[in-house]
Amino acid sequence: MLDFWYEFASTYSFLAAERVEAVARERGVTVRWRPFLLGAIFKAQGYTTSPFNMYPVKGRYMWRDMERWCDRLGLPLVRPDPFPQNGLPAARVALALPEDVRPDFTKVIYRLQFCEGRAIDAEDTLREAVAAAGFGYETALVAAKTDLVKDALRKETAEAERLGIFGAPAFVTHDGELFWGNDRLEEACDWARGRR
Amino acid sequence: MLDFWYEFASTYSFLAAERVEAVARERGVTVRWRPFLLGAIFKAQGYTTSPFNMYPVKGRYMWRDMERWCDRLGLPLVRPDPFPQNGLPAARVALALPEDVRPDFTKVIYRLQFCEGRAIDAEDTLREAVAAAGFGYETALVAAKTDLVKDALRKETAEAERLGIFGAPAFVTHDGELFWGNDRLEEACDWARGRR
Repeated sequence: MLDFWYEFASTYSFLAAERVEAVARERGVTVRWRPFLLGAIFKAQGYTTSPFNMYPVKGRYMWRDMERWCDRLGLPLVRPDPFPQNGLPAARVALALPEDVRPDFTKVIYRLQFCEGRAIDAEDTLREAVAAAGFGYETALVAAKTDLVKDALRKETAEAERLGIFGAPAFVTHDGELFWGNDRLEEACDWARGRR
Repeated sequence: MLDFWYEFASTYSFLAAERVEAVARERGVTVRWRPFLLGAIFKAQGYTTSPFNMYPVKGRYMWRDMERWCDRLGLPLVRPDPFPQNGLPAARVALALPEDVRPDFTKVIYRLQFCEGRAIDAEDTLREAVAAAGFGYETALVAAKTDLVKDALRKETAEAERLGIFGAPAFVTHDGELFWGNDRLEEACDWARGRR
């Protein structure tokens, strides 16, 4: 089993969400989708915004790298404005949804954000993604606004921090090995299967 | 052709130096070894030391990741103290050496640093590495101290910055595509060969 930790505003988490199911299936690994809030962890490290904004040279590279990746995946890339987007409401909805609905909801949110440039904290975006995942929006929204779900997201973020996660996506194996970045997905799956 | 940009104090540049020749050969790509000073570029970005020291959580991850990589490569890992080391003298010697001697000198410096914990600005380390690469130390040292070589290193670092390099290792193809990180070496070679 592999835990896939992701932040809704994160570009490379989007790529990982597109790839994780096929890569894991190929290697016989099951995946748990675990959204968290990277912003809270960044703040604790002294970042005031995304490092891609704090370090513009790094940011330029990231967007070019995203173009190359999206070309390869056959997806259009649209930069959301502003970047990073506010991932909080989507993360709450994701946690409020049943686990088997969460991957589809997540993937739709990412495509709306990075292929269409839609605001991911807007109600119509959230509604569209929940519907596309085959769930009822009102039910999801009511659940997302409960203290139970708000608290669950805080706990997940605290757990991410405890695991040493400092960026997204991150992959954690059952024996506690942490792998950071979309480009380490294959390696994380191999580790999860005991191939090192 | 692929330009391999590296900083002597950089852990992931060490891994890339261990791997680049075999990976490039397999793909029919020739490699130019281009040492530069990452510290100067970090300073311009507002870093005061290695990001692995500024962000200890990221630093802990990097050292664990290095352990995994070194295990896989069959190499012992010894953390140099202090980290990062001063890579200036080694970079000057590397540029003073003929191009065909530079890879061996570079690889020996990295192994002395990261497999034995030796100081890479110490004269005995530099001497040992030049000798291991089959060159005369006195000749290399005299050349390394000339204004010509000092200036060449400044120019290489300025060129790295112009190319948008913000970390090491970095790979740049003839058509100007930049790839950052040891884990992107294969992709950079593929791009250099026109496979995208």
